[in-house]
Amino acid sequence: MRIVVLAGGIGGARFLRGLKQAAPEADITVIGNTGDDIHLFGLKVCPDLDTVMYTLGGGINEEQGWGRTDESFRVKEELAAYGVGPEWFGLGDRDFATHIVRTQMLSAGYPLSAVTEALCTRWNPGVRLLPMSDDRVETHVAITSDDGERKVIHFQEYWVKLRASVAAEAIVPVGADQAKPAPGVLEAIAEADVIVFPPSNPVVSVGTILAVPGIREAIAEAGVPVVGLSPIVGNAPVRGMADKVLAAIGVPATAAAVAAHYGSGLLDGWLVDTVDAGAVGEVEAAGIRCRAVPLLMTDTDATAEMARQALALAGEVRA
Amino acid sequence: MRIVVLAGGIGGARFLRGLKQAAPEADITVIGNTGDDIHLFGLKVCPDLDTVMYTLGGGINEEQGWGRTDESFRVKEELAAYGVGPEWFGLGDRDFATHIVRTQMLSAGYPLSAVTEALCTRWNPGVRLLPMSDDRVETHVAITSDDGERKVIHFQEYWVKLRASVAAEAIVPVGADQAKPAPGVLEAIAEADVIVFPPSNPVVSVGTILAVPGIREAIAEAGVPVVGLSPIVGNAPVRGMADKVLAAIGVPATAAAVAAHYGSGLLDGWLVDTVDAGAVGEVEAAGIRCRAVPLLMTDTDATAEMARQALALAGEVRA
Repeated sequence: MRIVVLAGGIGGARFLRGLKQAAPEADITVIGNTGDDIHLFGLKVCPDLDTVMYTLGGGINEEQGWGRTDESFRVKEELAAYGVGPEWFGLGDRDFATHIVRTQMLSAGYPLSAVTEALCTRWNPGVRLLPMSDDRVETHVAITSDDGERKVIHFQEYWVKLRASVAAEAIVPVGADQAKPAPGVLEAIAEADVIVFPPSNPVVSVGTILAVPGIREAIAEAGVPVVGLSPIVGNAPVRGMADKVLAAIGVPATAAAVAAHYGSGLLDGWLVDTVDAGAVGEVEAAGIRCRAVPLLMTDTDATAEMARQALALAGEVRA
Repeated sequence: MRIVVLAGGIGGARFLRGLKQAAPEADITVIGNTGDDIHLFGLKVCPDLDTVMYTLGGGINEEQGWGRTDESFRVKEELAAYGVGPEWFGLGDRDFATHIVRTQMLSAGYPLSAVTEALCTRWNPGVRLLPMSDDRVETHVAITSDDGERKVIHFQEYWVKLRASVAAEAIVPVGADQAKPAPGVLEAIAEADVIVFPPSNPVVSVGTILAVPGIREAIAEAGVPVVGLSPIVGNAPVRGMADKVLAAIGVPATAAAVAAHYGSGLLDGWLVDTVDAGAVGEVEAAGIRCRAVPLLMTDTDATAEMARQALALAGEVRA
């Protein structure tokens, strides 16, 4: 079975770990969000790709969900001693090595997809990890600062520095309209048996991937089940601050509203949490098959069960 | 008193620490060798500038003479885990931060001299540290490998990886002929009261600086005492492997031969170690005032005394 998963960072990575357990024989291709990518200290940092790679490769910091296990921060401390920031982005020493290798390869002319493949030869994530695009896409957020000034900031500044503490007025994946899907992305979609939207952020993770021209169309035309798992449980994000960016695009933070945002033209099946069982009728009325099952990724077993439910739903909508 | 010192790495840096103690009121400008510079992991590394900066700024690893004190090597370990080398060059985590800041500033368009000044605002070395040139100069070494193949390698590969274990057949400061002295270099020389060649490597440190067109001429024409300290004591280098690179240019590893190599057209005074007192006559016969004094930099006090002797010799040749 060939499964394509559109993934952001922590939520996507943890779901993938469950999916691998649920479908050990499956051939899984992950299309990773790169809209969160940022240049820090002259280095190219790809937080979502790395979170998937580290999580599936056994190198992740389990507690925080991102960054390396057994990490230290000596380089960052020294950079701060030079007065060089930003200090709000947590790059550890072991993590730095990844960005140094990536930046060196990019400077040598390799596209991000080739660099990601090279990094994965170390981590053996057990999936094929593709960036959504080799072209630079950078998600920006329009906000109004405390002093009333409207400004546009990098997504990481909004998410990590400001912790989404002010309203996001607009979310713009800068460069997405000119970006091309990375090599292998459209092919993987065309050859997929199932396409899954994990409980990643529907705006700045899955939404950004879908903003790359050709990807949404390829999914809609693939002719295979497309199923998703709600990142909203009980009208709040399971983790992260997805409600803030949903508000920016006028989508209520409910499981049903996110399904409707993806739409029946794209989505065939949708899993909501049992606490949102009341939303099943609304989602189905919108033309999307819906089931209510436990959606908290408390451990890998629970997550694997979620993945099994998603694949079962895919089987159902195929029938 | 304005003193200009042409410095390489460890020897130059340690001498400078003694000079600062011997002449606390002096205005010292250091013209640093950049021929040892190397790009590693996509980062610009300037070993000699950093050794001077760390030594005078209190950040040096005293035992080894280069690199940072209290250093760790986690980034390097991770790079090795990615299969990315070279492993023979010891870049520590704290040291990496320096190269990251430097590379980021160079990429932003700042010349190396401005970058060095910026780095020094943290280290406060108590001297004005100038790279010899903002242009790229890279010292290469011609060798014949074990299998009989002639090849040309980077100086660091010869020095650090091979530990000068094979004969250097030629030393070429690639790019030096096209390089221009960095801003401030010729001005500092023109305004100097004394110019000092510390016991740095006469070929790949001081020699490389002198290979930048304009610097040798400016020193010869400055009309002020130029005094040097022999890096060769008892027919062997005090540290390092200077004899190997002296052989490449046909200069015997003796205190007198190094003085003759600089020549009376450049050098007014020369200090040899007391064990080489027998060479004083030969040096003076070549037109260079010479004194035999203890030249082992065993501690800062001993080094300060060497500096005082050098300044005294300068006063003598001026008179």
